[in-house]
Amino acid sequence: MLTADDIKAAHARIAGHVRRTPTLALGPETFGLGLPLAMKLEYLQVTGTFKARGAFNTLLGAAMPAAGVCAASGGNHGIAVAHAAATLGIRARIFVPEISSPAKIARIRETGAELVVGGARYFDALAACEAYAAESGAYSVHAYNAFPTMAGQGTVGLEWEEDAVGGLDTVLVAVGGGGLISGIARWFDGRVKVVGVEPEGSRALAAALAAGGPVDVDVNSVAADSLGARNVLEHVYAVASRHVDSVVLVPDEAILEAQRRLWLHLRVAAEPGGAAALAALVAGRYRPAPGERVGVLACGANVDLAGLAALV
Amino acid sequence: MLTADDIKAAHARIAGHVRRTPTLALGPETFGLGLPLAMKLEYLQVTGTFKARGAFNTLLGAAMPAAGVCAASGGNHGIAVAHAAATLGIRARIFVPEISSPAKIARIRETGAELVVGGARYFDALAACEAYAAESGAYSVHAYNAFPTMAGQGTVGLEWEEDAVGGLDTVLVAVGGGGLISGIARWFDGRVKVVGVEPEGSRALAAALAAGGPVDVDVNSVAADSLGARNVLEHVYAVASRHVDSVVLVPDEAILEAQRRLWLHLRVAAEPGGAAALAALVAGRYRPAPGERVGVLACGANVDLAGLAALV
Repeated sequence: MLTADDIKAAHARIAGHVRRTPTLALGPETFGLGLPLAMKLEYLQVTGTFKARGAFNTLLGAAMPAAGVCAASGGNHGIAVAHAAATLGIRARIFVPEISSPAKIARIRETGAELVVGGARYFDALAACEAYAAESGAYSVHAYNAFPTMAGQGTVGLEWEEDAVGGLDTVLVAVGGGGLISGIARWFDGRVKVVGVEPEGSRALAAALAAGGPVDVDVNSVAADSLGARNVLEHVYAVASRHVDSVVLVPDEAILEAQRRLWLHLRVAAEPGGAAALAALVAGRYRPAPGERVGVLACGANVDLAGLAALV
Repeated sequence: MLTADDIKAAHARIAGHVRRTPTLALGPETFGLGLPLAMKLEYLQVTGTFKARGAFNTLLGAAMPAAGVCAASGGNHGIAVAHAAATLGIRARIFVPEISSPAKIARIRETGAELVVGGARYFDALAACEAYAAESGAYSVHAYNAFPTMAGQGTVGLEWEEDAVGGLDTVLVAVGGGGLISGIARWFDGRVKVVGVEPEGSRALAAALAAGGPVDVDVNSVAADSLGARNVLEHVYAVASRHVDSVVLVPDEAILEAQRRLWLHLRVAAEPGGAAALAALVAGRYRPAPGERVGVLACGANVDLAGLAALV
């Protein structure tokens, strides 16, 4: 299982390889919401997303085989594992589904990792990755359904709690496969309410919580290339079902509007998945009580700038 | 003149209207420089640049006339005055030279301020603004050559000194008309070395320091729409000549390369003027001593995203 000590240990282990990203206090006029926010700017992380935390924690937390590591990823996890492996001098092979954005694929190539593009969705790439691991002896770094990954992502919660001036009652966190929210929710352990945000068209965690266990869902969302997991799988479910308070769903239009407002009000160029948590407030899918101290995670910025320019 | 108490008073006065922007500790691998940095992310400020500090300090620091305020600006100061006036319920007319970017002009329009576009360069817009002030009785808010403006910008230094983990030996600050660097340098008062960075093609402060007083320079730089002042003028000169350590010049290519690295390494979408301070390190125009604790100010992000997309 996953403990607070695992997350503390991860935080010490990855220091020096990742950035302590800032938590910014925003006034109620920001984003037109009438609500002050404690926004953690995790998109400023090494590799542009929180995924670097789990990747470094995994690669530093155990001896890696001579065959190196492999990972399957819609992009951000692949970038993070490729970067961590390059930094630590470990061989890496990254399996990427065809829906991944060109911006993300280019970043993986830049690290010098071997790149295999194939399969329509994340789970197709994962199958290819697992087959390669079985054949080669490489260590397969799961994007979310692994305790070292979740412990690394949980360090977001540790920093957020220390840095949010005036404290936090509730945090909103985007959910893809659920590794990030599981780590954060385990860290907060009920001291802060953790609310997941999923696109209406990519609701693996909401479906699992409703069904009482992991189930497959269809994926069709503007945020699919970062949040498009078909299933949260068993380890994530075990942690999330216990520690996550609830999940709200947001339409794609709200995600696009949140991207727009992040740029216009804060000059943050977020990818759709990185704007999804804010979308819950933009769309009124999460409505805080008066005085509730709300945190929002801006978790990723690996966006095609030309596309964002057209949007804003 | 400008005192540390003026800057402290400004900081108290503008709190609640501006953001306390974060200072981010960056490892030596960042930007390929081999140098750790304490980067203050002032582009996250309300209106996208530090200019909001001076604007709010000016409008809150004295009674404003019924005719309201006016300002001349290549863009960012105009955006800031327009925003502050709209927030405080004060009428504003903004005079903008023709070289201003469409992105900046659009932001001024959004506030509801009256907008007058005309004249080739900043000083042409300033002449029109001063004529309007004389005729209407409006309060003319100078972009840099005024003590309330400088005191507001100096609050950047106050926060940076408090927030930089491990302290600062030297800070690099981009210079246009010099209001920002004057305020910061007055704040640090020799405790931290303040180095100005100007484009080779827009060197009003370097020329003034060499000449022993303000002189006119030609302006021709990729950063002209934010840094393109023809003259630093007398109040800025009085403060800067006493408190700024030195000025380095950077070629436009280094500014563009700094914009590229800010996006690729940190997902910061900076305008040319906002990347100029980093350009001094990218181009080797400022070379820190071993162990020197260097701060870099990322001061503005009012960039056309489509243009930035083409650049990176």
